[in-house]
Order: sequence, then C-alpha cells, then structure tokens
Amino acid sequence: MIDQNCGYCVGGEALAKFGIPICELKVSSLILFKEQSKPGRCIVAFNRHVGEMVDLSEEERRDFFEDVNKAAKAIHKVFQPDKLNYGAYGDTGSHLHFHLVPKYAGEDEWGGTFLMNPDKKYLTDEEYQEMIQKIKAEVEHDDN
Amino acid sequence: MIDQNCGYCVGGEALAKFGIPICELKVSSLILFKEQSKPGRCIVAFNRHVGEMVDLSEEERRDFFEDVNKAAKAIHKVFQPDKLNYGAYGDTGSHLHFHLVPKYAGEDEWGGTFLMNPDKKYLTDEEYQEMIQKIKAEVEHDDN
Repeated sequence: MIDQNCGYCVGGEALAKFGIPICELKVSSLILFKEQSKPGRCIVAFNRHVGEMVDLSEEERRDFFEDVNKAAKAIHKVFQPDKLNYGAYGDTGSHLHFHLVPKYAGEDEWGGTFLMNPDKKYLTDEEYQEMIQKIKAEVEHDDN
Repeated sequence: MIDQNCGYCVGGEALAKFGIPICELKVSSLILFKEQSKPGRCIVAFNRHVGEMVDLSEEERRDFFEDVNKAAKAIHKVFQPDKLNYGAYGDTGSHLHFHLVPKYAGEDEWGGTFLMNPDKKYLTDEEYQEMIQKIKAEVEHDDN
C-alpha cells in the first residue's frame, strides 16, 4: 500500500521536507528529523501505510516496538539525553510513525510535551551526516 | 519499586489530581484523564516505577504495548475518534505511561500534537463514571 502524497511512502522530496533516511529496521525506517532543537530527534516510520498501531497484527506490533526500542536505545547511547519522549500523532496523515524526541534538563521544551516542529534549528549537511553515521553505527551494533 | 511522590505508584490523592482508575490490564493500569477536552482521553501506566520502554525486558515491552493496544481499541470503539494520538513524556516524573488522546476532525487540537493538560474541560462524577463503565466493558469484552 503506497500513498502518493505520503512522505513516508514515496520518500524523495516529500520526505526531504522534514527528514533524512538513516537506515532500515525490521519493519520500519529510521529517519533523522531535520529540525534539531533537541539533538538526536528521529522518527520511526512503519513500512506500510497504516494509520495506527491498532491496525497492525500482533506480530507487526511486536516487531514495530522492537524497532522503536532499538532506535531509542541508540539515541540514548549517542546523545545521552535526560529523557526520551515518544509521540504518535498524524491526525491528517495516516502513516504510523513515532517521533523520538530527546529532552535535556533545562533545555528546549524540558518538562513538557514537544511541538510537532519547533522550527528553531537546522544543521549543515555535514552535521546531519555525522549524526546519521553515529546513530547507524549504534543501531547496527545493537544485538538485541 | 515504589516512589512515594509518584501518583502512578501511590494512587490515592496523588493520582486523583489528574486521573481516575478504570481497570488493571496485564502489566499496567488504565486511567481516565480528568481533563476531557478530547472525549475518551486516558493514560496507560506501567505497573512498576521505570522511566521508559528501554528499561523494560522484551517480554514486559510486548505485554505493555499489548495493553496500550487494548486500551486504544476500546477508546476507538466507545468514542469513535477520527484519530488516536499516543504520547509518552514524563521528563521529570520517570514512571512509564502513555497518554492516549482521541482527536476529532475540526475539534480541539485537531491536526497537531496535544497539550499535556489543556485545562479546558472537566466532568461531573456521574459523567466520569459513565465513561469508565463504557471503557471497562469494552476492555473486558476484548478477547485479543
């Protein structure tokens, strides 16, 4: 199932508006969120155009949260946030994905939720690539 | 593990500030969120004082998201929102819980994320109990 208007389905320019692919996980894609006011913010997007976790089979749900967990562990390892937030919204989009948002004590949006896109901080291509390599290396070395 | 300052651990008045217990699930508690600007908003709180999903064993993680999924299906069935949002924050709290927030097209916070507590709408005790009975009945009739 592919939705031609969905950045997660078609990738390319539609995805490039907000994210950069890092790597494929078991049943999902790990994507770096371009807005980086919270260093290490990523998205884990399921590899099929389904709306919510309730639309998954039991096996798919288990695999998906194994992927989310693997990404979360990598973000903790690389960026050492004080807390990681997890959010799935997509009211108008309908492609299951979780935002993984590292929070740092006393810094941006600490102690609350987080904005869909704070639109405060973007990096250079080199900086994005450096982050991507670090996250990817950690995900690949995770044997869980 | 019990944290005496944590509403999810000690229940009672600390929990009553924001929620009302609905029922126990396999490894978590289902709680009605008192602020009801989005009808059917609930919390699924893990039954131990751990910070995040990355602190769970594989089996605990599977059971927890089975619980979240069961609660989500019940909310969909009873309230028929256009989308359900899922969010875990707790920067300063450290007791794993997900907010399950039903969204309705064109209504409060549709199309974005959601506030931790919009503080807009509270119900009478009778209205809370009516919601609780409906959700509980749906959770108990769910054989998945």
